[in-house]
Amino acid sequence: MLTRDDLAALDGADPLAGFRERFDLPEGIVYLDGNSLGARPLGAPDSASALLGEWEEDLIAGWQGRGWWDLPVRVGGRIAGLLGAAPHQVICCDTVTVNLYKVLHAAVALRPDRRVVLLRDSAFPTDRYVVESVARSTGRAVRLVPRGEDPLGHLDGDIAVAVLEHSDFRTGELLDMGPATASVHAAGGLAVWDLSHTAGVVPIALDGDGADFAVGCTYKWLNGGPGSPAYLFAAERHLDASEQPVPGWLSHADPFAMTDDYRPHPGIRRFLTGTQAILSMRTVEAALDAYEGVDLHEVRAKSMQLTDLFVRLIDERCPGLEVVSPRDAFRRSSQVTVRHPRARELHPGIVGSGVVGDFREPDLLRFGFAPLYVGYTDVWDAVEVLAAVTG
Amino acid sequence: MLTRDDLAALDGADPLAGFRERFDLPEGIVYLDGNSLGARPLGAPDSASALLGEWEEDLIAGWQGRGWWDLPVRVGGRIAGLLGAAPHQVICCDTVTVNLYKVLHAAVALRPDRRVVLLRDSAFPTDRYVVESVARSTGRAVRLVPRGEDPLGHLDGDIAVAVLEHSDFRTGELLDMGPATASVHAAGGLAVWDLSHTAGVVPIALDGDGADFAVGCTYKWLNGGPGSPAYLFAAERHLDASEQPVPGWLSHADPFAMTDDYRPHPGIRRFLTGTQAILSMRTVEAALDAYEGVDLHEVRAKSMQLTDLFVRLIDERCPGLEVVSPRDAFRRSSQVTVRHPRARELHPGIVGSGVVGDFREPDLLRFGFAPLYVGYTDVWDAVEVLAAVTG
Repeated sequence: MLTRDDLAALDGADPLAGFRERFDLPEGIVYLDGNSLGARPLGAPDSASALLGEWEEDLIAGWQGRGWWDLPVRVGGRIAGLLGAAPHQVICCDTVTVNLYKVLHAAVALRPDRRVVLLRDSAFPTDRYVVESVARSTGRAVRLVPRGEDPLGHLDGDIAVAVLEHSDFRTGELLDMGPATASVHAAGGLAVWDLSHTAGVVPIALDGDGADFAVGCTYKWLNGGPGSPAYLFAAERHLDASEQPVPGWLSHADPFAMTDDYRPHPGIRRFLTGTQAILSMRTVEAALDAYEGVDLHEVRAKSMQLTDLFVRLIDERCPGLEVVSPRDAFRRSSQVTVRHPRARELHPGIVGSGVVGDFREPDLLRFGFAPLYVGYTDVWDAVEVLAAVTG
Repeated sequence: MLTRDDLAALDGADPLAGFRERFDLPEGIVYLDGNSLGARPLGAPDSASALLGEWEEDLIAGWQGRGWWDLPVRVGGRIAGLLGAAPHQVICCDTVTVNLYKVLHAAVALRPDRRVVLLRDSAFPTDRYVVESVARSTGRAVRLVPRGEDPLGHLDGDIAVAVLEHSDFRTGELLDMGPATASVHAAGGLAVWDLSHTAGVVPIALDGDGADFAVGCTYKWLNGGPGSPAYLFAAERHLDASEQPVPGWLSHADPFAMTDDYRPHPGIRRFLTGTQAILSMRTVEAALDAYEGVDLHEVRAKSMQLTDLFVRLIDERCPGLEVVSPRDAFRRSSQVTVRHPRARELHPGIVGSGVVGDFREPDLLRFGFAPLYVGYTDVWDAVEVLAAVTG
């Protein structure tokens, strides 16, 4: 049997241990919900204060003089570094919902002769609602892949676009981006990826894997803050041909000309809509500072070990909990989901005992392990609580 | 001829003079650009700090425990007070672009037998691009009202929706909401108002005037901060029948059920898309605090006097400048636009002399007067600079 000392030894040898100092975490809890809202990076207050000072002093001149105008592409370019994408293909703006809506319209229009959009029926509800809305308005059909089945087995010559979650939000099951994208392409379709539950903890190679479009949020693993702006990736080969349905003056080729005719910006800015929430985007910058020098392969290695240990200890000590995440760490994101028939009732007691995770309908408890600020003894301490509450 | 002392006397008698203390303004400039980016309210730093503290301490629990979840409706309800609307009809979210896109889709769908969307060709570019995009995707035609013509003269039985700027963004010319809405209704159409350039300085009566939908930004006269979230109004009579094209789990009737079928929220929340930028919305709250106790009719009275005096002094002292805003203050928002053939060249010198306004293509200089923090002697000092630079 493992002991807490075994895990303390792993903490002592952890090459990422020092990164915990880059985050402000409250005392007395084990925070396993970085997959819902990431912890606050150390630099967030200074980053917000700086923007507030610029607003006070520079007022309208801040848009050019302080670089607010270019912030969506500057921040997008830095996020690109965590996604394995060349920087000019990523922009930070809007919400995941709005961004998915934009890229899905763009993608469907690039496959005018195809009539089907593919989605797993287990997808995050927003993805499903957006897919259904876009399909309805563009005269396409939605093909839902039944839960548990391989989406790649449902590809054929009718597929215009496949919308794929990189990690299932309930179970943390990963979909391997390279082979999946290649299969979609082999069928003649385009692949749109939702990276909300993986970016920042799983190495991603959007360019290397040939992804067409992608979206994701910055407030989970990326630690941007409550509701911080989302991001959007469009592969360079699609940029100039992409049309999105929510054009604004900021996405125009020459915004200050304020002309009557709409000409989309030649680059990624064509995916902008209106003026973006600069203050919230500045805390995303602080979060990206916290990621400076981080090797995502090291993060992944620790993540796999953390979740492996959690699964092992759950098996050993919590007979009432059934692990529903894949048991193979290579097929799992940085999240472990367990089932308990009384999960809803038990969840407040678990949180009250200092272990913070999510409850998800109908009977799931979801725990996320952020390798930059969660340690091995945290895993031990969390299972102690789970064993006591569910035992 | 007026003297600076005459204006100083008006400042001395100004019932709104004390409100300037509610804003942090830099020394040494006359800021006449509150119609592009409002000044920073005194409470903004504390409001931002509070949110950053809640994020650090409460993490995911902040969504419910700190009211982030309800912030869009709470802030929306407070904005409603400045729009003459019952609070449950307004929500704070997204950008003006995205909100106009949503309400325009909803409005067009409520007039399924009508085929035309009406817009002035002088409208803000974003409004035009969005109208054209929505018209294209819903099979409607756009009827552009030529510059200088009365849009109400172009209404007929084909009109589904009229998208109307409450104030022309170039000239500050007001469109009288009551009669205009009544005319649109008499023609069988719906009226969608863009309030970006009036809310906060012109009294508005969305409910009293029977407006159907409205959108606007919070970063101009409302002082919410760079790119702070926009708002959206839907009249109660339309709420339950409105469908918007960018549904997310947050606009679902029961978000945490995370069901496969989309059922829109019964109230204004159906217009939400994804998770909103809470930090940026908290500075909007601080801005609304600065508006507490403000009588918008007093604001309007001062606004008319400020702009009247500016026009008069321009006429007296700046022969090179042509006033293109309406000369009747009742037909003008809180903005005065002047024309100069070398406006583009002169603009940097004007700003360099401490008078901050906008240049707009091709030859316009635009000055906005925020009655809560601009005084009468500011008007004098601004014209001094304009006379020197253009004389």
